[in-house]
Amino acid sequence: MGHIYKEDFLIPFDMVDVNHNIKLPKLLSYCLFVSGKQSHLLGRSDEYVLEQFGLVWIITDYEVTIHRLPQFTETITIETEAISYNKFFCYRVFRVYDAAGELLLDILTYFALMDANTRKVSPVLPEIVDVYGSAFVKKIQRAPKMLPLENAEQTTYHVRYFDIDMNGHVNNSIYLDWMYDVLGYEFLSQHRPAKLQLKYSREVSPGGDISSNVVKDGLTTYHDITSEGQINAQAVIEWLPLEEK
Amino acid sequence: MGHIYKEDFLIPFDMVDVNHNIKLPKLLSYCLFVSGKQSHLLGRSDEYVLEQFGLVWIITDYEVTIHRLPQFTETITIETEAISYNKFFCYRVFRVYDAAGELLLDILTYFALMDANTRKVSPVLPEIVDVYGSAFVKKIQRAPKMLPLENAEQTTYHVRYFDIDMNGHVNNSIYLDWMYDVLGYEFLSQHRPAKLQLKYSREVSPGGDISSNVVKDGLTTYHDITSEGQINAQAVIEWLPLEEK
Repeated sequence: MGHIYKEDFLIPFDMVDVNHNIKLPKLLSYCLFVSGKQSHLLGRSDEYVLEQFGLVWIITDYEVTIHRLPQFTETITIETEAISYNKFFCYRVFRVYDAAGELLLDILTYFALMDANTRKVSPVLPEIVDVYGSAFVKKIQRAPKMLPLENAEQTTYHVRYFDIDMNGHVNNSIYLDWMYDVLGYEFLSQHRPAKLQLKYSREVSPGGDISSNVVKDGLTTYHDITSEGQINAQAVIEWLPLEEK
Repeated sequence: MGHIYKEDFLIPFDMVDVNHNIKLPKLLSYCLFVSGKQSHLLGRSDEYVLEQFGLVWIITDYEVTIHRLPQFTETITIETEAISYNKFFCYRVFRVYDAAGELLLDILTYFALMDANTRKVSPVLPEIVDVYGSAFVKKIQRAPKMLPLENAEQTTYHVRYFDIDMNGHVNNSIYLDWMYDVLGYEFLSQHRPAKLQLKYSREVSPGGDISSNVVKDGLTTYHDITSEGQINAQAVIEWLPLEEK
């Protein structure tokens, strides 16, 4: 069991969609902010890790189960725990609860450490992760492999300046923006995600265009983001119709 | 003098650009979150205003002076005060300070009330604004008028799903994304805004395309956003070169 850190959060206007539901990419970003605070409190801030070891945390995969999306002005509790690690990955969960203690989302995140200069994955260093109280587990848990899409619908997006973050590449949350967007306003305003499997495989650089590709199979959508002939990210999303208001 | 509300804020990874400076649209959004908290504490939350009066707050203009942009992991203090109001506008300032008490930004915001159904501007109701302690001033202070652009460079942007907010239109912060983006990565990564005058005149609806138009005159850039033959927003931005690192 890792040390648990949690805090309450009031959902602001800026984070919700036309249905008053939180925008999932923004919630995922905010969760990272929360785990960043835990790391800071434990003396392992991003800055410290960069200065001491020349390393930065990257996310390789998300596995998200959504029972209900939090809504505008709702106060939620975000709880996070670094549950285990092995030679290359650290596994962290975020659990989002409503005020009544009902579990709204369960988010498993795969982290790895990358050398800031070479951009290569680094082994997990015990002196970085020992403070979290998480277990070393020899077996490497890997996210489900996703196949390349066939006969996908393709839409081109220009990478905007504000899509780029401090690492000089497109921020993780933007990939999901592109994946959602190809589904169209009508579909998105009438459905909500129930499950998301998301894999990041290659960073997108500033300035160019990307292609957001989708194959739809009923209420399951299969996505990838490609640029310069390579896959940057892949996802599978299961959707549910929104209840009538 | 209006009642002053302030709180501290630690700048997260998610809000900064490749230079570690805060992304201005994200700071402006966060400021609204802070004033929203003041309103909530004073019993005038957005929800209350909508339920009791059928009205929503809109922003018509920003006048921003930037002495320095806050940086990643810096703790800033955001102070806000509803300074005055007249028949149609409420004037609110946000002052952003660093930990040493130096003023980093000074943001004047023009608010108006809009009928949520008719989308028409409503007169300011004393029973909404009386709690803020701000002065009624008969004279209507108007933001500087901006002229239409001539021979502008035009770039087309698709409105993304997550650009839309709970009001069913493009979120205010996105206009500035589009305005910045046309200046290009090279310029933006070597300059920072020193002054911004921004006017919102017409909402952008979901689904279509907009044109982000710019005229450059040295370190001053003149912008407008147009769609369906009409102007949605206009801005003038004065830039300064970033100091060498």
